[in-house]
Amino acid sequence: MTPVGPPATAAVEAVSEPTGTPRRLAPRADRIRADLEHFATLSEPGPGVTRLAFTELERAAHRYAAEELAALGCRVHTDVAGNTIAELPGSVAGAPAIGSGSHLDSVPSGGRFDGIAGVVAAVEVARLLAESDIRLRHPYRVVVFAAEEGARFGQACTGSRIVAGLTDSADLDRLTDHEGTTMAEAMRSVGLAPDRAGEARWDAADWLAFLELHIEQGSVLESSDLPLGIVDVISGSTRLEITLSGVASHTGGTPMHLRSDALAAAAELVLAAESLAWDSRHHGTRATVGRLTVLPGALTTIPGSVVLGVDVRDVDSVRQRATVREFLDHAAGVAVRRGVGFSHRLLADTSPVVLPAGLRAQLIGAAERTGTAYRVMPSGASHDSQMVNRVVPAGMLFVPSRDGLSHTPAEWTSVEQIVEGTAVLAEAVLGMDSADGLEPGPAQDGGS
Amino acid sequence: MTPVGPPATAAVEAVSEPTGTPRRLAPRADRIRADLEHFATLSEPGPGVTRLAFTELERAAHRYAAEELAALGCRVHTDVAGNTIAELPGSVAGAPAIGSGSHLDSVPSGGRFDGIAGVVAAVEVARLLAESDIRLRHPYRVVVFAAEEGARFGQACTGSRIVAGLTDSADLDRLTDHEGTTMAEAMRSVGLAPDRAGEARWDAADWLAFLELHIEQGSVLESSDLPLGIVDVISGSTRLEITLSGVASHTGGTPMHLRSDALAAAAELVLAAESLAWDSRHHGTRATVGRLTVLPGALTTIPGSVVLGVDVRDVDSVRQRATVREFLDHAAGVAVRRGVGFSHRLLADTSPVVLPAGLRAQLIGAAERTGTAYRVMPSGASHDSQMVNRVVPAGMLFVPSRDGLSHTPAEWTSVEQIVEGTAVLAEAVLGMDSADGLEPGPAQDGGS
Repeated sequence: MTPVGPPATAAVEAVSEPTGTPRRLAPRADRIRADLEHFATLSEPGPGVTRLAFTELERAAHRYAAEELAALGCRVHTDVAGNTIAELPGSVAGAPAIGSGSHLDSVPSGGRFDGIAGVVAAVEVARLLAESDIRLRHPYRVVVFAAEEGARFGQACTGSRIVAGLTDSADLDRLTDHEGTTMAEAMRSVGLAPDRAGEARWDAADWLAFLELHIEQGSVLESSDLPLGIVDVISGSTRLEITLSGVASHTGGTPMHLRSDALAAAAELVLAAESLAWDSRHHGTRATVGRLTVLPGALTTIPGSVVLGVDVRDVDSVRQRATVREFLDHAAGVAVRRGVGFSHRLLADTSPVVLPAGLRAQLIGAAERTGTAYRVMPSGASHDSQMVNRVVPAGMLFVPSRDGLSHTPAEWTSVEQIVEGTAVLAEAVLGMDSADGLEPGPAQDGGS
Repeated sequence: MTPVGPPATAAVEAVSEPTGTPRRLAPRADRIRADLEHFATLSEPGPGVTRLAFTELERAAHRYAAEELAALGCRVHTDVAGNTIAELPGSVAGAPAIGSGSHLDSVPSGGRFDGIAGVVAAVEVARLLAESDIRLRHPYRVVVFAAEEGARFGQACTGSRIVAGLTDSADLDRLTDHEGTTMAEAMRSVGLAPDRAGEARWDAADWLAFLELHIEQGSVLESSDLPLGIVDVISGSTRLEITLSGVASHTGGTPMHLRSDALAAAAELVLAAESLAWDSRHHGTRATVGRLTVLPGALTTIPGSVVLGVDVRDVDSVRQRATVREFLDHAAGVAVRRGVGFSHRLLADTSPVVLPAGLRAQLIGAAERTGTAYRVMPSGASHDSQMVNRVVPAGMLFVPSRDGLSHTPAEWTSVEQIVEGTAVLAEAVLGMDSADGLEPGPAQDGGS
C-alpha cells in the first residue's frame, strides 16, 4: 500500500530565514517510495533485483524515468550510449546546467537502491522545482547513466565513461559478457548506437556541476549513526580475470603427487588476494575474488581449469597498482610451483579520484543549512561521478546502507533516509544556483 | 573410415596346446573400434563425451548395446533400474552365469573409454563366443549398468547398487541433481520404474562370478609399461556437499574486517582437503574438491555463499572415515573463525572392497595363459564391481590410461590395448567355465 501523501502544493515550504536562504524544498516520501517500488518490479526472476546493463529491463527503467520527467515539462532524450538526460530550463539563457542523477542497472541478484536511490532523488528534485514557485537561473538536468555496474561486462561506469570520453567504440567491441556477447552487440540489441559513442560526449562548458546521491554500500554512516556522507575521494578499482589451466583427471585414479589441480591453485589466489589487502602495507586496500568458475565442475573430476575475477580497490593509486603487481607476481609463482598454466586479462583499471573541494564545500553548506549531520568520507565503491568529474566538477552525497550491505537482495535504505538526503541535494542545487555569480533571472510568476 | 577386418570365421583360433587349454578367442580390433566410435557419437555438444546418468543419451547407448547383443541371439532385457542384461545360454541347465560388463554413462565433458571399454570388451566376448564352436556350460551374461558416475546425482554406481540391494526407492527419491530433479524423476522421464527398484535385485545363486574390464584412470600401468592390471582392492569414496554462507556485499564498500566472505572460507577448505591427503598419516588418501559454485558470482560482490563437493578416497576404510572427520572438524573451525555459516550433507559413502582372491587367481591364470604381462594393483576409482561383489564374486581387469588421464576429453586407451585386455577377459571366461566342477555339457555341433 502506498500511503497517501499531502497534496502537491503542500510540498513547497517557503521559509524565510535571516541567513538569507529564503527557499527550502521538502521531498515527498510517498513519491520516492512509489518510484523505488516501481523500479524494483523491473527485474529478472529470482532473489533481489537483476537488471543488467544494456538489457530490455534497464531500458524499461530508463523509459519510466523519462516519462516521469517528460510529465514535468522536461525536454528528455536518450543519447547513443543509452544515457537518459532530462532538462528543466533555467532562466538565464546559455547558463551551464546543474546536473544530478545516477544509474538504474544492477548486479545479478542485487538490491533496489544502488544507483536507483540517486535517480529517484534527482527526479524528486525536478518535481519539487517544477511544482514550486522557484525558477533556477541554471538549467537543472537529471541524468540516468547506462551500464554503471561492471558485473556484466567487467567494466564499470560505461555510460558515464562515454560522456567523459573515457571509453570509445573500440572498447565496446572488445568487452564481452559471459556468453561472449560484446558490449556493442548488447547495445545494438536494445536500439543504441555504439559505433557513434563519440557523439554522447559532454561539452564541459555546458555544465556547472554534477551532484550524485548514492547509498553508502558500507557501514560507516550506520556505525556512526549519521544520516549523510559527503564524499571526498572515490576509490580506484583494478579488475582482473585470471585463468588457471590444470589437468582434469579422475579424483580416485590420480594420486596427489601427479595432480595439476586448477582449483587448488585458485584457492591459493583467493587467500593471497585477501591477505594482501590485510597486510599492514596495504591498509585501506580491498581485494576480492567475487567470481570463480570451475571446469568441468564434477565431483569426481580434478578441476581442469578455473577462471576467477579479482577486484582490487584503493583510495591511493600507487598502492592500488602495487597491490595488483604483487598479486600477479604471487599468482604466477603459485602457478609455476603447482605446474598449472596461468594467464590474466585486465578487465578494467580506474584510478582513485579526489572530488573538487569547492563542490564539497557547497554540499557541506547545504547539509548545514538543512540541519543534517554529516561526515566527510571516502567511497570504496566506484561511481559515475568519478568519470563525470573528468569533464564536469562532481560531488557526491551518501545515505546510509543498513548493515553496510549492497549488491545483495538485503540492500536497504529507508525512504526517510532517502528523503533526508534528497533534501540536502535539493538545497545544494538551490545554493549552487545562487552562488556562482550569474545575474539573477527574471521574476517568477509562480507555479510550473 | 573403419578398416575392413578379416571375415568373422577367421576370428576363431582353435589352439590345441599340451597344457590342456585347447581354446583361445581372439578379439577383433575393427569391431572394438567401431563400437567405441559409435558410443562416442552419443554425447551432448561440447568437448569430450557428456552422456549423463538417466538421460535419453544414456538410454540410446544402452539400446545400441542391446541391439548388438540381440543380433547374436542373446536374450536381452533392461531391468526397472535401467541396467541392460543380455544372456547367451549355457549348455548345463540351471548353471549360474558368468557375467561381464561395465557402464555407458559419463561425467560432464568426460572421455570415450571410462565404462565403455568394459562394455565393448564384454560384447566382443559375446560375439566371439557366439561365432565360435565353443559352447560354454554356464550362461554368459553381458551387463550394462546404469548411472555408474556420481557426477549427476552425487551417488556413484546406482545401477549396480540396486542389483546388490544397496540402494532402494527411498534413496532414489532423496538424491537430486543440480537442477533439483530427483533420481527417481530422472528415471521415470526415461521410462524406468524407480518405485519397483527392488525387483532389479540379483539372486546370488543365479551367478557364478562377474568380471569387469575397465581403463585404469591412473598412470601406474603406463609408468610400469604393463598392458594389464588385476585389481585386488577398490578404494572407498566418501562424498560430501559443503555449504558455506557468508554475507554478500559490495567489494568496494565493505572493509576487509567487516567481511564474511564465503569464497575465502571455501578456499581454505580446498587447500585443507589437499593437505590432509598429503599428510604422512594419510598416505594413499586422495581428497579433491571437484565442484565449487559461487553465489551471486559477480565481480563486484563479495561471495555470499559457496557450495562445494568433496570426494575422499582411500583403500583403508578406517583412514577414509578418519580423514572425513578431520576435514569436517577443520572446516567447521574455519567457518567459526570467519563468521561464516557451515553445513554439510553426505552425498555418498562407500567402503573400500577387497575383491575375492579366488577370482583374482583365475584372472592371473588367464593373463599367464595368454602371455600377458600384468601387475596386481588397487583401484583408486569406484566401480560397479565393488557393488556387485556384495552379492556375486567380482574380479577386475585394468587396461592402461594414456598419461593416467580420465574424466576428461583427453582420456585415451588404444584399441590394441583394449584388444589385449579383452583377450584376457575372454580367456578368463573360458577358464572359469571349465574350472568350477560342473559336469561337462553335451557335445557341440559348432557355430552359433
